Amino acid sequence: MDIALVILAAGKGTRMNSDLPKVLHPIAHAPMLAHAMAAGAVLEPQRTVIIAGHGAEAVAAMVAETDETAQVVIQAEQLGTGHAVAQARAALDGFDGDVVVLFGDTPFLRPDTLDRMIAARGAHDLVILGFDTADPAARYGRLIVANGQLEKIIEYKDATPEERAISFCNSGLIACDAATLFELVAEIGNDNAQGEYYLTDIVELAQARGLSVTAVKCDEAETLGINSRADLAAADAVFQARARAELMENGVTLMAPDTVYLAFDTVIGRDTVIEPNVVFGPGVTVESGATIRAFCHLEGCHVSRGATIGPFARLRPGAELAEEVHIGNFVEIKNAQVAEGAKINHLTYIGDAEIGARSNIGAGTITCNYDGVMKHRTVIGADAFIGSDTMLVAPVTVGDGAMTATGSVITRDIEPGALAVARTRQDNKPGFARKFFDKLRAQKARREQENS
Amino acid sequence: MDIALVILAAGKGTRMNSDLPKVLHPIAHAPMLAHAMAAGAVLEPQRTVIIAGHGAEAVAAMVAETDETAQVVIQAEQLGTGHAVAQARAALDGFDGDVVVLFGDTPFLRPDTLDRMIAARGAHDLVILGFDTADPAARYGRLIVANGQLEKIIEYKDATPEERAISFCNSGLIACDAATLFELVAEIGNDNAQGEYYLTDIVELAQARGLSVTAVKCDEAETLGINSRADLAAADAVFQARARAELMENGVTLMAPDTVYLAFDTVIGRDTVIEPNVVFGPGVTVESGATIRAFCHLEGCHVSRGATIGPFARLRPGAELAEEVHIGNFVEIKNAQVAEGAKINHLTYIGDAEIGARSNIGAGTITCNYDGVMKHRTVIGADAFIGSDTMLVAPVTVGDGAMTATGSVITRDIEPGALAVARTRQDNKPGFARKFFDKLRAQKARREQENS
Amino acid sequence: MDIALVILAAGKGTRMNSDLPKVLHPIAHAPMLAHAMAAGAVLEPQRTVIIAGHGAEAVAAMVAETDETAQVVIQAEQLGTGHAVAQARAALDGFDGDVVVLFGDTPFLRPDTLDRMIAARGAHDLVILGFDTADPAARYGRLIVANGQLEKIIEYKDATPEERAISFCNSGLIACDAATLFELVAEIGNDNAQGEYYLTDIVELAQARGLSVTAVKCDEAETLGINSRADLAAADAVFQARARAELMENGVTLMAPDTVYLAFDTVIGRDTVIEPNVVFGPGVTVESGATIRAFCHLEGCHVSRGATIGPFARLRPGAELAEEVHIGNFVEIKNAQVAEGAKINHLTYIGDAEIGARSNIGAGTITCNYDGVMKHRTVIGADAFIGSDTMLVAPVTVGDGAMTATGSVITRDIEPGALAVARTRQDNKPGFARKFFDKLRAQKARREQENS
Repeated sequence: MDIALVILAAGKGTRMNSDLPKVLHPIAHAPMLAHAMAAGAVLEPQRTVIIAGHGAEAVAAMVAETDETAQVVIQAEQLGTGHAVAQARAALDGFDGDVVVLFGDTPFLRPDTLDRMIAARGAHDLVILGFDTADPAARYGRLIVANGQLEKIIEYKDATPEERAISFCNSGLIACDAATLFELVAEIGNDNAQGEYYLTDIVELAQARGLSVTAVKCDEAETLGINSRADLAAADAVFQARARAELMENGVTLMAPDTVYLAFDTVIGRDTVIEPNVVFGPGVTVESGATIRAFCHLEGCHVSRGATIGPFARLRPGAELAEEVHIGNFVEIKNAQVAEGAKINHLTYIGDAEIGARSNIGAGTITCNYDGVMKHRTVIGADAFIGSDTMLVAPVTVGDGAMTATGSVITRDIEPGALAVARTRQDNKPGFARKFFDKLRAQKARREQENS
Repeated sequence: MDIALVILAAGKGTRMNSDLPKVLHPIAHAPMLAHAMAAGAVLEPQRTVIIAGHGAEAVAAMVAETDETAQVVIQAEQLGTGHAVAQARAALDGFDGDVVVLFGDTPFLRPDTLDRMIAARGAHDLVILGFDTADPAARYGRLIVANGQLEKIIEYKDATPEERAISFCNSGLIACDAATLFELVAEIGNDNAQGEYYLTDIVELAQARGLSVTAVKCDEAETLGINSRADLAAADAVFQARARAELMENGVTLMAPDTVYLAFDTVIGRDTVIEPNVVFGPGVTVESGATIRAFCHLEGCHVSRGATIGPFARLRPGAELAEEVHIGNFVEIKNAQVAEGAKINHLTYIGDAEIGARSNIGAGTITCNYDGVMKHRTVIGADAFIGSDTMLVAPVTVGDGAMTATGSVITRDIEPGALAVARTRQDNKPGFARKFFDKLRAQKARREQENS
Repeated sequence: MDIALVILAAGKGTRMNSDLPKVLHPIAHAPMLAHAMAAGAVLEPQRTVIIAGHGAEAVAAMVAETDETAQVVIQAEQLGTGHAVAQARAALDGFDGDVVVLFGDTPFLRPDTLDRMIAARGAHDLVILGFDTADPAARYGRLIVANGQLEKIIEYKDATPEERAISFCNSGLIACDAATLFELVAEIGNDNAQGEYYLTDIVELAQARGLSVTAVKCDEAETLGINSRADLAAADAVFQARARAELMENGVTLMAPDTVYLAFDTVIGRDTVIEPNVVFGPGVTVESGATIRAFCHLEGCHVSRGATIGPFARLRPGAELAEEVHIGNFVEIKNAQVAEGAKINHLTYIGDAEIGARSNIGAGTITCNYDGVMKHRTVIGADAFIGSDTMLVAPVTVGDGAMTATGSVITRDIEPGALAVARTRQDNKPGFARKFFDKLRAQKARREQENS
């Protein structure tokens, strides 16, 4: 059976207190809507329809970047979840498979949950997703199920104390074939206090037609809705806990798991050791047997087997470190290929560059890649020795086995095996420091006296 | 009715195991006594009296700095809370309003709690503050209340199992009119095992006079007393949790709230994003829509709308960043105004300086502000381009649109639009590096052979 | 009575998913086996036998480094705990004291627990260590004790619901005199589903001989076994919580205890303040009254009274800081003695050096200690002033009260009181910057036009 996802992403999220549309707030560096789309993608849907409203333009741009086959439909007025689903009708014209309705702000559905919803569709016309709440005072609608049939959804406000004691709650997510869904949705009324069209009302409408309705159960954490910054932080924490546990399961040592922040796409190999306080932005892959020391920040980079990074290192997008590379403290690497066994140990900026195998980059080295208008590239060969405080004014090339003298500004290429020097002779002036400080101190004393 | 605060701050805090007087230990960068004074200040007291004892001189200095109208009274010997309050009598001579007695080591009273104590004073002569404990074995005195009257305080050691099951406990804080308070306090005896004068005894003394006594209830967390470093850390954690929740409520994104440390006076605007591991010292304001990346440390600084800071940036007191400023990694800014759109991206120290709009400060730039005796100022105009590894020896001025060559030491002013160069020509010595390393390696091998 | 430890350390630890033998995975920077050995060492054993198997060579190397008197015995095949203990027989030939059997993966036994096991040996032939589990579904064997005698160990799988409700569980650790132990162990059979020899079976064998068997109780946390990276992280967390609490008890302020990571041997003095996010590697001692600011990383170093470190400082092995030293941000110190009151405040690398009292090291200073083949030493006297961006090409000596000019490369010694300069005169080129950028921008525009 073909599957279409309809993801509701039109809400404003007033409690977020933000100019950014709610579903674009990120969790682990991906917008929560992208997480929801990824969750739904395990069903390999033929069609994906995003219902956008608040900030629709920004939402559409994000969707286009994530999945160019997804369609974005605008819900101009937000008149309820039933009304939102109705907007998908035209976009799914001619589609006759199953529709699964998801929410853009519930990013943590597990693949197994969606599979079970689809499986349940085999035996039932309409499938509702529910969960057991741990909180008896939770204000969700309660699901009354008997003999595999969902008999009724009782809104919390209408429920008796006995009914409120039922822990099985309505998540709002559903699966239904497209034709039936849109027929039912068209029948939903708005005769209620809020004047809204509630998707949940299709349960009663389906039952009135004699259709079979059931409920599938998932963990409460999967349907966690995000309505405030605190919810957002809590969702990020859920993501982090899952991702850290998975890494450890796969043989990665996290010395202090709670202090390692992972992105949605972080990949780390077996027997790699991560010390406390490491932050991963998006796009990082680390091979096996590497060491990421404390206080490192990595984004968009690749770290190979046996490399050691940090403490206090920053790898920016395009940093590609080969095996056994050493990156030390207060070092920034950006858009640079660093070959096997090269060492960049202290207070250095390498940007738009290529560093050859086994080369040693002295403390305080800077690739001067920006001339104020354009960026240029620095190329350093293998087995080179870059003296401390060398400025490499790009574009510039340093040959294999070449060397720069400490404190040199390198503006011209250096041939292999050569030494480049740009330095003035040291001149010692006996007694000068003594006199200089005596004079300064006297000056200071004089000023203080004048001001007193 | 006029209000006077009497804050007991004389205790040694033996379990702190410290040379610093207990009430001066800081929570979120303010001494706990300052938190207690701030809590009481919501009552807009006409008079504030601090009872100091251990470390009285240091306590008096801190009080003077926090509120110059507050009076410090010395309790030479610590003979109990009743004795401590008695010390305030002379300082409040002639004052005929209400006295609220607070403790210097219970910093977290909410405004509403104090308001309710004062409101209760309208109907009662003496008001005691109590709280419900979650721990039935907690060794606090139990409050027996009937018909709005506090009937009795039963000390834990004297309580029956039934009485211990009462969760309503005595915090020790009181509100009473000044005349009655000092009369009652004068009657307290010290006929007990410790030989101390307990403030709590005034309840019985008041009842003996036929006065009306009641109890007001607050959260247990509000009366959390601090007696050890572990308590101090726990109090800091309580402060942090409150402050983080409040920021998120106000529309600030904290990606990992538990890793963001706030000071007592941190202010952050809506839609600002704070990445993991950011530490705020005192005196920081951040406007809306800024980004503070991971591993930043800020103190006494201002960050404007749209600015981006870090990762690995340090803003020290007097750093004032205008809109859209970029501060990158391993950068320190101190006592400096950085104008709109300026960029300081790598390995830089800017101190005692002014940076003009849109100027670009190259990696490794240092303002040499200290000559060994005095500090001097660097002024850089708008649209300037400071080459990498430029040393700006202050006092020095760089004009609008001027430029410095990479690796230059700038000791003289640069006029607008000019280039300043202080650099030696690069000399390449073919084959030198090869020979140099061959020689060094041979030397090393020889030494190793000699030592073997 | 003489005591011998037998520590079982042969297991593979399949669930660790690692190439490193399980007992070598570190907790707080020491292998878990070293923690187990240290726990046992409080009994002052005459003999220590480590039973190694998987990764025996690496285990033996670690043992030799930790305690050169310890014997390592190889268990070629892992046929169960009984079989493992049997391997120790030859190594303990002639030893007639008590044997205490510990596990290499239960690193947290308290001294008091081991003392109580030995004390119990006075009255009983065989002593088993048990613990109360908080989890009624925990799959440990239950200990049935009556009148001080251990009557029976019931395996979880064989237990009735009533027996499973017993919380007292078998840890597997035992104490017994050597002769009896090896006799009993020789009688253990392997007639069970796994075909393994279980040490626990000696309880029944001892009882069959009419020997007296008892059980001693410890906290569950003490017998925490480590079988996965998640267990390892949990064990590290247990260690950290213990160590942080102990420091606070001793008068150290940890502003945010959960963010301070300690090593197994960290020593910190009273009234030292540790800000959030500080990581201690092995071998660090900090005296009283020091301040370690946020984001610092310390290993193998000594910090004296009144010194201030960080934020963002890294102290590496061999850094020895005297009283009142100031180390600021983005500073790395390695193998260097820094004398009283010296200041190294910004963006500096000091390695293989000696810094005299009260000297001021300017921002961007680097000791160029490595010539590509060997390391050399820098010596700076007292009261020296090292200008910003000074390169000290070692070996080199700077005399007392001497000074270097900003941006100088120092290759020759400087006598006391002298100034060393290695700098080119600044040349200002009027209008050059304006023309330069105009040209660059035109170039860029031209290229963009060509490419469009």
